[in-house]
Amino acid sequence: MGQGRVVSSRRVYDGRVVQLDVDEVDEPGGVRATREVVRHQGSVAVLPVHADGRIVLVRQYRYPVDREVWEIPAGRRDLGEEPLEAARRELEEEAGLRPAHLEPLVEYDTSPGFCDEVMHLFRATSLQSVPPRPDDDERIEVVAFPLEVAQAMVAAGEIRDAKTILALTLEAVRERSKP
Amino acid sequence: MGQGRVVSSRRVYDGRVVQLDVDEVDEPGGVRATREVVRHQGSVAVLPVHADGRIVLVRQYRYPVDREVWEIPAGRRDLGEEPLEAARRELEEEAGLRPAHLEPLVEYDTSPGFCDEVMHLFRATSLQSVPPRPDDDERIEVVAFPLEVAQAMVAAGEIRDAKTILALTLEAVRERSKP
Repeated sequence: MGQGRVVSSRRVYDGRVVQLDVDEVDEPGGVRATREVVRHQGSVAVLPVHADGRIVLVRQYRYPVDREVWEIPAGRRDLGEEPLEAARRELEEEAGLRPAHLEPLVEYDTSPGFCDEVMHLFRATSLQSVPPRPDDDERIEVVAFPLEVAQAMVAAGEIRDAKTILALTLEAVRERSKP
Repeated sequence: MGQGRVVSSRRVYDGRVVQLDVDEVDEPGGVRATREVVRHQGSVAVLPVHADGRIVLVRQYRYPVDREVWEIPAGRRDLGEEPLEAARRELEEEAGLRPAHLEPLVEYDTSPGFCDEVMHLFRATSLQSVPPRPDDDERIEVVAFPLEVAQAMVAAGEIRDAKTILALTLEAVRERSKP
């Protein structure tokens, strides 16, 4: 860890969701390079699985892709918020679901080439319905699908979101590993 | 498509890898919101699979996470470059491999909440060795692993890259689907 030596750093944008730095760096192996880095405080996402195997997706408009997006409940972590707590919060706010079990699936870097965002992915089961509490700028539809239907939506290009495709694929591996 | 109405747009950074826009948008459902959007010209990634089932990973330093990263060969598309051609180019440049077969696996949005990057993921087989041609600012190690070893590296947190974890998980599903 901490292998690069920062020669100079310039913050070109400090926003609500992202910060952008342009850094001059001496990297291992003797490379001096200018790197554009999007800084992000980290995200969580949750695959909710009902007792009958149906998984829950939410649908909302996402301006960067200018389209309604099917995805698993997800969001940014608040400052200092533990991933597990953030996952529990997003699942309630976006999908109106409270899980008795919340299992970590995998933790990963979303785009290590230009961004420091870390994603914590969870699997939620034993789901109880509670009133959803979307943010002021969120309009969210919540639908439960059989896993095979969601997989067909991936194959058809109707689900295009990275974390959602990964979560569904992990669930397919789990299904196929059952004795 | 094209559901949001842009009220105003401000480009706060125009770089080599990313652009950053801060846009005021009227979104479907009557929401007016300020959105920070990282613009990216799109990426490709390739899972190379040898005839014996071993998969090929490359290891290189990635400044945004300040760490050596194990990942499948990948990179940005050049302007106007077809995804398939970009995948072929990156596989040769980074891993020194030329595939007889290059199959599209999935196309997805890496982070639709704040970024418009589209990733095209491929699977390469019938691999022939050629001299690698890394960029001036790249120092790359190339290693072939059995799939089970790579999966163990994911479980141990040694592989943390999103596209790589997705590609390995898709490969595991394919393996388990074999008759």
